[in-house]
Amino acid sequence: MKGEIIAIGDELLVGRVPNTTSLFAARRFFEAGYLIRKMSIVGDQPESIEEGLVQAMLKTDFVVVTGGLGPTSDDLTTEVISRILGRKLVFHNGIKEQIEKYFRAKGEKPCEEYLKLAWLPEGATLLDETGKAAGYFLEHEGKTLFFLPGVPDQMKDLLDRKVLPYLATKWRPSVVTRQEVIKTFGLVESEINARCADLEEIYPRLKIGYYPDFPEVHVTLTFSSEPLGETEAILSRAKAELEARLYPHIFGYGDDTLEKVVGDLLRARKLSLSVAESCTGGLIGHRLTRIPGSSDYFERGVITYSNLSKVELLHVSEETLTAFGAVSAEVAEQMARGVKEKSRTDIGLSVTGIAGPSGGTPEKPVGTVYIGLAVPGNTIAHRFLFRGTREMIQKVAAETALDGLRRYLAHDTLIFGS
Amino acid sequence: MKGEIIAIGDELLVGRVPNTTSLFAARRFFEAGYLIRKMSIVGDQPESIEEGLVQAMLKTDFVVVTGGLGPTSDDLTTEVISRILGRKLVFHNGIKEQIEKYFRAKGEKPCEEYLKLAWLPEGATLLDETGKAAGYFLEHEGKTLFFLPGVPDQMKDLLDRKVLPYLATKWRPSVVTRQEVIKTFGLVESEINARCADLEEIYPRLKIGYYPDFPEVHVTLTFSSEPLGETEAILSRAKAELEARLYPHIFGYGDDTLEKVVGDLLRARKLSLSVAESCTGGLIGHRLTRIPGSSDYFERGVITYSNLSKVELLHVSEETLTAFGAVSAEVAEQMARGVKEKSRTDIGLSVTGIAGPSGGTPEKPVGTVYIGLAVPGNTIAHRFLFRGTREMIQKVAAETALDGLRRYLAHDTLIFGS
Repeated sequence: MKGEIIAIGDELLVGRVPNTTSLFAARRFFEAGYLIRKMSIVGDQPESIEEGLVQAMLKTDFVVVTGGLGPTSDDLTTEVISRILGRKLVFHNGIKEQIEKYFRAKGEKPCEEYLKLAWLPEGATLLDETGKAAGYFLEHEGKTLFFLPGVPDQMKDLLDRKVLPYLATKWRPSVVTRQEVIKTFGLVESEINARCADLEEIYPRLKIGYYPDFPEVHVTLTFSSEPLGETEAILSRAKAELEARLYPHIFGYGDDTLEKVVGDLLRARKLSLSVAESCTGGLIGHRLTRIPGSSDYFERGVITYSNLSKVELLHVSEETLTAFGAVSAEVAEQMARGVKEKSRTDIGLSVTGIAGPSGGTPEKPVGTVYIGLAVPGNTIAHRFLFRGTREMIQKVAAETALDGLRRYLAHDTLIFGS
Repeated sequence: MKGEIIAIGDELLVGRVPNTTSLFAARRFFEAGYLIRKMSIVGDQPESIEEGLVQAMLKTDFVVVTGGLGPTSDDLTTEVISRILGRKLVFHNGIKEQIEKYFRAKGEKPCEEYLKLAWLPEGATLLDETGKAAGYFLEHEGKTLFFLPGVPDQMKDLLDRKVLPYLATKWRPSVVTRQEVIKTFGLVESEINARCADLEEIYPRLKIGYYPDFPEVHVTLTFSSEPLGETEAILSRAKAELEARLYPHIFGYGDDTLEKVVGDLLRARKLSLSVAESCTGGLIGHRLTRIPGSSDYFERGVITYSNLSKVELLHVSEETLTAFGAVSAEVAEQMARGVKEKSRTDIGLSVTGIAGPSGGTPEKPVGTVYIGLAVPGNTIAHRFLFRGTREMIQKVAAETALDGLRRYLAHDTLIFGS
C-alpha cells in the first residue's frame, strides 16, 4: 500500500514558503502505517499538474494532491483532472447551496467565482459535506485519488477527519509501524549513536533515528512487524534499554518540551521559580511562560542587561562586579540568590554570559556563559564555553539552564550540561 | 534554462524533518534567474534514486540531487549514478589524500569507510577542492548534474560557492527576475490585496505575492523582463506606489526583522528602552536581545508575572490592582511608567493581558491585552482583543507592542495596531 503526495504551487517552487502541508501529510501517513514512496512539488500550469499526477499514478495505490482548488483563475486542478482522467465535470447543486448558505451567513452575496467549486469530475465525492473546505476524492482504475486544498489548516483537518479514516476502510496497513520519540540534551548525535547502535542488531526490526534539533537531539525508535501485541512488547523492551544508556540526558517523550517538563516537576513538587537573565535576554522566561498555567509556579523574571539593573534589581554587589566582571561565577551566584530572595520563591535561576558576536576577551571569549542555581540551602554556579552564532549561544545557554533545573527537580542533583 | 531538485532521504518521506535544503536551493535558483520546474523527495533505495533522476533528466537542463553521498552503507547515490549513466567509478588519489589529511589534522586514523568518497563516476569533477564536503558535478548528454551532500550547511555552502557560479558561466539567465520583499504588520492579507491588486494591471510583468507569516504579512514584488536597466526603474516605481498604499504598516524590507528596525531607530535617535512584560513573559525582551549590540539601547526588562512583582518592581499601586485588576489600562500605564522611571530610560514599554487558554471573564475574555508606552512627556495605554491560541496571542501582543514603539520612533505617533 504505497502512496505519493503532490503539492501544487509556484510559490513553493521559488522557495518563498516551506511545503508544510506535505510534511504534515507524510508524518500522518507514516504514523498510520502507509508508505509514501515519493513527494513532489509542481507548478500551477496545467501541463505541470498533468505530468505530476500521471507519473504518480504509475506506481502507487493512492495519490494525495494539494492546492489549486480555489475559486480564482489560476486554480486549475479540477479542470486538469477532468481532462486527463476523461471524466466530464458535473455540477453539484448541493455544493452550490452550501456556498450560498456560507455567504448568506456572512450577510454577503455569493461571488460568481465561487460557483466554480460546485463543478467536480464525474464520480468524485466531496470530502467535507459541510462545504467549508474544497476537497474531494475519486476511485480511478483501482487507485484512490485525493484532492485537497493547499491552505494548511483546511488540508490538515480534511486529512485527519476524512482521508485517513477512508483509507483505513479500504486497506488495512499490512505492516504495523510504531514509533517512540525520545528527547535528549547534553549528548552529541555521534555519542548517542555509539551508545545505542547495537540495539538495531539485538532487535532486527528496530530502526533508530537521530534528529538533531539544536540544541537537543531527538531519538526515534521505529519498529515494524505484523502482529500488534509483539510489537508493543519488543518496543517497550528496546525503549527501556535505550533509556538506561542515555539517562540522565533524556528529558521527555513525544510532544514534550523541556519547559513543559520543568513546569510539571515544579507543580508536582509545589515549588516556585524566579529567573534572572542577562545574555539570554528573556528567552528562558519566554519558554517557561509559553506553557499554559505557568503562573502556578513562575513568579517573576528580570532581564538585567545593564550592570546597574543587576545591582538595583538583584542586589549584586558593585565590588563583585568590579572585581570579577558581570560575566563571572560570583555574579551568576549573586543573581540566582538575589532573584530568589527578592521574589521569595523556592528557586532562583540565573544566566550571565557573552553571546557575541563582539564583547569577547582572551580570558572570556564569546560563548563564555555562567549559569547559577539557588535552591533551598544551596547556591551553585557553573562556567560553560558554548560555540556558534549569537542565536545558538543564547539557545544552548537557555537549554542548559532549564535542563540543569530539570535534573535538580527530577534527580536532586546539581549537575549542568554533559 | 530549467532545472529540477531531488532530495534523497527516508527521513524526509516519513515527515520527521522538513526538507530545508531544497527550500533553500529553490530560493537561490529563483533569485539567480533560473526556473525550477519540479522538486521531489525520494527514498534511499537505488531504484527510487534511479527513478527520480531518470525522470528529472527528461525535461531539464540541470538537476541538483542532494543526499546519499556519505560514507555509510546506505549512501548509494554515486553507485546508482555510475550504473544508470554507464560511467564506471574512478578512484581519485587526490580525494584520498584530502581525507587522510583531514583525519590526521584531528589526530585520528582515517576510517576505511571514508575511502568510498574517493570513488567518483568517470568524468565527474569534485566541487570543493579542499575536500571538506563531498559533492561533484558532471556533464551528461547536454545536461549538468550536481550531486551535493544532504547536510544543510555543507549543501548551502557548495550551492552558493560552486553550483551557482558554475551555472552562470554556462548559461546566462534568459529572463531577469528581480524581487523585493516588503514586510508589513497591522493589515490582513485581503486588505493588502484590495489596496494593491491593480498594480499588476498597471505594470504587466509585475507579480505581487502575499505571504502571511503570523502575525506579519510579507509582500513580494517580482518583476521579470529582458533588459536589466528597465527592470530596476519599473520595479522601483511599483515599489514606491505600493509603499504609499501600505504606509504606515510597512516596517521593513528583505531580511529586516521588526526588532532590528526598532533597535536601529533607538540607536539613531540615541534613546534607551526598558520593558515590563506580563502575558508575553519575556518574548519582547528575547526578540530585542536577539539583535547584536542591543545593549546599546536595551537597559533592562522585567517579567512581572505575579501581582506582587508588579508592585515591588514597578511600583504599580495595590489600590489600582484591586480597583481595575492586573489586566487594565491603568496597570499597563503604571507598568510602562514604572519601568521607565526605575530604570531611568527614555522609554518604557509594557504588556499585560490574558493569553489563555483559561483565565478569561465575560468583561475580559481570553485575548484581552493592554499595551502601555511611556515616552518623554507622555504615557498611553491601548486595549486589544486578540484571537487564537496562547502562542498566537503572545506573538501578536509582542508584535503589536514593538510595532507601536516603531511607529513612535519613526513617525512620532502614538498609534498601535491597525
